[in-house]
Amino acid sequence: MVYLNGDFIAKDKASISVMDRGFLFGDGVYEVIPAYNGKIFRPTEHLDRLQKSLDSIQITNPYSHNKWINILNKLVNHSSSTNQSLYLQITRGTDTKRKHNFDALTPTIYVESNPLTSKTKQELSKGFSAISAQDIRWSRCDIKATSLLANVLYAQDAKKHNVEEVILYRDNQITEGATSNVFILKNNILYTHPTGANILSGITRDLVLESASACSIQIQESSFSLDNIFTSDELWISSSTREIMPITKLDNKPINQGKVGAIWGCVFEYYQRLKND
Amino acid sequence: MVYLNGDFIAKDKASISVMDRGFLFGDGVYEVIPAYNGKIFRPTEHLDRLQKSLDSIQITNPYSHNKWINILNKLVNHSSSTNQSLYLQITRGTDTKRKHNFDALTPTIYVESNPLTSKTKQELSKGFSAISAQDIRWSRCDIKATSLLANVLYAQDAKKHNVEEVILYRDNQITEGATSNVFILKNNILYTHPTGANILSGITRDLVLESASACSIQIQESSFSLDNIFTSDELWISSSTREIMPITKLDNKPINQGKVGAIWGCVFEYYQRLKND
Repeated sequence: MVYLNGDFIAKDKASISVMDRGFLFGDGVYEVIPAYNGKIFRPTEHLDRLQKSLDSIQITNPYSHNKWINILNKLVNHSSSTNQSLYLQITRGTDTKRKHNFDALTPTIYVESNPLTSKTKQELSKGFSAISAQDIRWSRCDIKATSLLANVLYAQDAKKHNVEEVILYRDNQITEGATSNVFILKNNILYTHPTGANILSGITRDLVLESASACSIQIQESSFSLDNIFTSDELWISSSTREIMPITKLDNKPINQGKVGAIWGCVFEYYQRLKND
Repeated sequence: MVYLNGDFIAKDKASISVMDRGFLFGDGVYEVIPAYNGKIFRPTEHLDRLQKSLDSIQITNPYSHNKWINILNKLVNHSSSTNQSLYLQITRGTDTKRKHNFDALTPTIYVESNPLTSKTKQELSKGFSAISAQDIRWSRCDIKATSLLANVLYAQDAKKHNVEEVILYRDNQITEGATSNVFILKNNILYTHPTGANILSGITRDLVLESASACSIQIQESSFSLDNIFTSDELWISSSTREIMPITKLDNKPINQGKVGAIWGCVFEYYQRLKND
């Protein structure tokens, strides 16, 4: 069962017009929200970010927070999985003819929920690989937009290289991963690119910073280079569905001799507590 | 009547799954091809460019040139308009679940044709206005992709300012317009940004260069700045549907004292001959 424009329907019945501006122009925004033990995790933070994305592309939010929560809860409760990943997409709506500019339309609203299996600490502790690439995306990566072709091509590159993520750099500074935020730890200081137009202000990113503080780690929101990664003590990526993942190999070169660091373990444990609050 | 995945159907019956990667990710490419007097204009050039776009994002072209031409001709002949604008979109296809990376899927193919009314020389001779803006798009603007949110926002800005186009600069060099290529004429030399990753290699761009050569104008494919525009003799934009349009005001400041230049007239005339060949 999925939600489309006011109705809960079977997924294979969920269709949209070819004149939907999401289809024609990637003219929409989205959110991915985890639910643990049947409870939506950090709904306010995700719905606040959705509002920012909508504002940035001049779409009026069709629903109140409460209405969103009701829809999300109905999907969560309908599923038999205790942990789920909610996907929510809003496009500008169906146009009468294809033209780049827009008039006020009725937004298209699509929501689905899928089972979410988080990796265990043991699975994560073996470490993961990534590759680096130049950040060719647009300059408004703070908007969680559905114009995602660059991210699709990165994800395919990651698959081809059998790695977890592509870590991006712009002007020699690491921005973020293709579908994650990026952190390095050096001498008990955690570095991550500051929020702004070049990265998505991740909900999990904030929780990583909160968790790291709880582990007595100093936070420094400043950018760093690819070289800094190779001399770092730990490298992590974060996203709502992958949580906090230790990367121990980048471009086939080991980070911290290829071993998962101790601080990651502390941050991971704290994050698990936040999830189960 | 439109074409969707093998069938000619009514436009209001043309629907796709929410799992279409065009809808979820802007994971597709497109072409806009004019037809004059019922004859498709430069079909080979457009289909060659389509092939390049498809290759760039790793979608196998589902049809041969001949098959494409047959579909396009059928739509052109079905319409009562002598001049038409064909729109052709291919997305990676419908996925079973939302994930950034992709497997081989059956592409979604959508084609429609709409009446095209070209502006007359008299209408064009009054000149048009544009505004300039920083180019925030991704770094693969040579791919005619449907991830077009940046272009949508520019088009809306143009509408808000009641101008024809937004002319973009990157690192202080003019790249192109949000939906056009850009040219300046100075001392009988025509300048336009060289092809490459930062601009779309326009079919009409090539025809403008051909037409300018026929008017004894020297061509220089090199980039120029915003300042160069204000000291230029003529400023034009080109696209398949707008052809060659003289811009006489940029950011509310006149170009060539706000008058359409003489060379534009020659190039316009030559282009009309190409259309009717």
